Amino acid sequence: MTAKHAEELNRILLQRAIIYPDSELHGKIAGFYDYGSVGSEIKRRWQDYWRAYFLNMRDNFYEIESTQIMPEKVFKGSGHLDHFFDPVAECSKCGERVRADHILEEMLHETFEGVNAKELSDLIKKNKIRCPKCKGEFKEIETFTLMFPVQIGAGEDIVTGYLRPETAQGPYAAFKREFRANRQKLPLGLAVVGRAYRNEISPRQGVLRTREFSQAELQIFFDPDNLPEVDLKRVKDTKMNVLLAGKKKPVCLTAKQAVTKLKMEDFFLFFLAKTCQFMQIMGFTEKNFRLRQLDDKEKAFYNKYHIDLECYSPSLDKWIEVAGFHYRTDHDLKGHQKVTGEKMEVSYGDGKKCLPHVLELSFGVDRNVYLILDNALTFDESNKRTYLKLPQQVVPFDVGVYPLVKKEGLPKKAREAFNALGMVGFKVFYDETGSIGKRYSRGDEIGVPFGVTVDFDTLEDNTVTVRERDSTKQERVLIEELSNKIWEMKG
Amino acid sequence: MTAKHAEELNRILLQRAIIYPDSELHGKIAGFYDYGSVGSEIKRRWQDYWRAYFLNMRDNFYEIESTQIMPEKVFKGSGHLDHFFDPVAECSKCGERVRADHILEEMLHETFEGVNAKELSDLIKKNKIRCPKCKGEFKEIETFTLMFPVQIGAGEDIVTGYLRPETAQGPYAAFKREFRANRQKLPLGLAVVGRAYRNEISPRQGVLRTREFSQAELQIFFDPDNLPEVDLKRVKDTKMNVLLAGKKKPVCLTAKQAVTKLKMEDFFLFFLAKTCQFMQIMGFTEKNFRLRQLDDKEKAFYNKYHIDLECYSPSLDKWIEVAGFHYRTDHDLKGHQKVTGEKMEVSYGDGKKCLPHVLELSFGVDRNVYLILDNALTFDESNKRTYLKLPQQVVPFDVGVYPLVKKEGLPKKAREAFNALGMVGFKVFYDETGSIGKRYSRGDEIGVPFGVTVDFDTLEDNTVTVRERDSTKQERVLIEELSNKIWEMKG
Repeated sequence: MTAKHAEELNRILLQRAIIYPDSELHGKIAGFYDYGSVGSEIKRRWQDYWRAYFLNMRDNFYEIESTQIMPEKVFKGSGHLDHFFDPVAECSKCGERVRADHILEEMLHETFEGVNAKELSDLIKKNKIRCPKCKGEFKEIETFTLMFPVQIGAGEDIVTGYLRPETAQGPYAAFKREFRANRQKLPLGLAVVGRAYRNEISPRQGVLRTREFSQAELQIFFDPDNLPEVDLKRVKDTKMNVLLAGKKKPVCLTAKQAVTKLKMEDFFLFFLAKTCQFMQIMGFTEKNFRLRQLDDKEKAFYNKYHIDLECYSPSLDKWIEVAGFHYRTDHDLKGHQKVTGEKMEVSYGDGKKCLPHVLELSFGVDRNVYLILDNALTFDESNKRTYLKLPQQVVPFDVGVYPLVKKEGLPKKAREAFNALGMVGFKVFYDETGSIGKRYSRGDEIGVPFGVTVDFDTLEDNTVTVRERDSTKQERVLIEELSNKIWEMKG
Repeated sequence: MTAKHAEELNRILLQRAIIYPDSELHGKIAGFYDYGSVGSEIKRRWQDYWRAYFLNMRDNFYEIESTQIMPEKVFKGSGHLDHFFDPVAECSKCGERVRADHILEEMLHETFEGVNAKELSDLIKKNKIRCPKCKGEFKEIETFTLMFPVQIGAGEDIVTGYLRPETAQGPYAAFKREFRANRQKLPLGLAVVGRAYRNEISPRQGVLRTREFSQAELQIFFDPDNLPEVDLKRVKDTKMNVLLAGKKKPVCLTAKQAVTKLKMEDFFLFFLAKTCQFMQIMGFTEKNFRLRQLDDKEKAFYNKYHIDLECYSPSLDKWIEVAGFHYRTDHDLKGHQKVTGEKMEVSYGDGKKCLPHVLELSFGVDRNVYLILDNALTFDESNKRTYLKLPQQVVPFDVGVYPLVKKEGLPKKAREAFNALGMVGFKVFYDETGSIGKRYSRGDEIGVPFGVTVDFDTLEDNTVTVRERDSTKQERVLIEELSNKIWEMKG
């Protein structure tokens, strides 16, 4: 099943211009993928929905757009310059390079997050792990920086910047200006939706581990001694499928029950529950979505709470991290305070003072989009077809309009239906090329929920056929009632 | 006037979190700017409107999302690797580096686009142009590549990629896959909205010349021997303010009149007129917007038509290029055909064959946004205020809602108005901090068209005050009629 699923998904991604390797004809480089004419629409709609959802959770939450190249000092303050390395195992015989933690994970079926290079070297020796290519022995583990440096300027004026390895540093660096411009209020939320870059040693998992990728991250700055009030009632029944630290099996809880299990203040639980609701809107259920609470060894020392959001991938038959919920305490602002000499303490409200703490909601956009596509792929054996059961929020088009044949006035009539649907805000595409079966099939494979066909009867009685993607049910509808009908069918 | 205008614009951009230097506290690098919580909203709305406008001009026009780092071979094919250099003049005394063509332009008030390094050296000597800092003599002009190289991978596997200097190469590299996926039809439009990077030697014009910037570019692929039909009637009355090649004064033409003056086929003129309409929607008129036709010396040899779109900048008192209209012939696909060995000729329709030509509409997003802000800044002497007269399409918020004071039930009532407006799709912000005058002033300075104030009368009779940004006129309206009233006032 997995192999068939993976193969079919891959075919659709490539053939339907959803996701494909960048610069295929020019000697593509591993770890770089483009979103095609269909994929970029899906990704953009995901991003737009993310913005609408997370920035409307509360007043004083905004998006900002930071540059992607930033000065070295930013990454001194963030700790990346000193700590953002990958442990690399190099084969002494064939020179193959692999991530030491990844090869251990593959062989031993455990995670090795946060384990240092020395320990990894010992584990590789102890478990007699050899090169997967030539069975040679690995050298001692070395560490490589994951950041891409960029030389800016020329001659004696050259300065080194880095392509950001995450979007989060933008909001930290701009915090004080935004705090002042936005009436000196806390909590303040600053999001960035944009690219980040990591020089991955061996990017081998398709779009799940790329060197250029997109993130949607929200940094919530707040006073830890005056946790803002939240209306937990609004989310108390939200279902959460939680893999508690150290446990092997997840438990299904409501947000209300999670309070005691996760030992979290209402403030944090509120945003965790809202995050789960977002994933549920994107079509995930307890079957393919869970929260994984990291234990003290796995999580960074500065994270008070660290919960990964994981989705099950049918094509890979494993759980994949798609987002993170991180209570980062004052780690970030303190780091930047140290390297800049600028006091990050602020005075807010009626003269209260604090060095704000940060709660980060961090989403990998490409991973979320891939997992949605992966889970949307549906084999409909009885109709001998596959289709993408995409959630409404991310479909590339709402409706496809097809004249049965490209003559005898049908295209003109189809344009009428096309225009009528476009006028009321549906995103519509028009297709008159090839057999009607092929056009339905393309619509199904890119997840278009409705197909409208104009045929010879249309010329007589002004009715068209509306076909529903998931059920393939067809219904005759008057053109003048078409948009209302589709609104109704969307439910 | 210019100095006062520039100063006030700059104050608003910084103070109101519209645009500010990136990483200010971390030793910012010249040529990198962030969009703040207000500016990113304006920029994003501009981009969304650009997409909606240009991709709906015709069927078969799509957006794609290419990576920003691309392999070296792409830039071999595009010509950037061999030709994308800046002529740099270095002072022999103090080491100051300036763009040779820019300093000549400043001193001689002519443009020197397309003039080579040798000629620039001669011009500098002939006109006795000296270093603006120390009056030292310049050395011979040298050329520097404008692309940022990026080393990808590690050890022996390192490959060189480049941060793209323009977005256009993505659609060229992906053309064949997109052509196949989109039913092998011409014309095919492929747009990219995203970042590009240039290692400018001396980025001195604020956001007008940055090292990291955003472009919105549409590449239209078509068969030059079968120019697609367009409905020129739809645009024939569009006004165009054209500075014809070699002329000193622009002439105001309709699109219909421009046919003979510009000697362009209908196909091209249609898209040129649509482009002008877009600029008009963004608030530009013949007073501050013109087309500049480049002469044969200025334009690249492969461009059959090259027209720059220029806007007048009140803060700089000069005309600024914000977009370009380029008929690039088969230059691009031919270049990529040569380096990849892949035939770029395609077969379309009923078996017609061609190597597609390209019409490019290329917009600098940051320049467009800046010129809109610059032209929107209005001094209202009678009310002792400045405000941004932003076009509706790019306002950061539609309405601000303000309780007169932060007590006695007014905030709760204001929330009602806030929710009512949000429900019907207005983008609303809520502000209860500081005096009402200060809140109006902030709304004005970020271009919010309407302010709604809730006061003690509201508690009695459920009416609120609606204040209009441009006229400052105020009107009492029932909350239940508020959204209709604002729709009506928007016109």
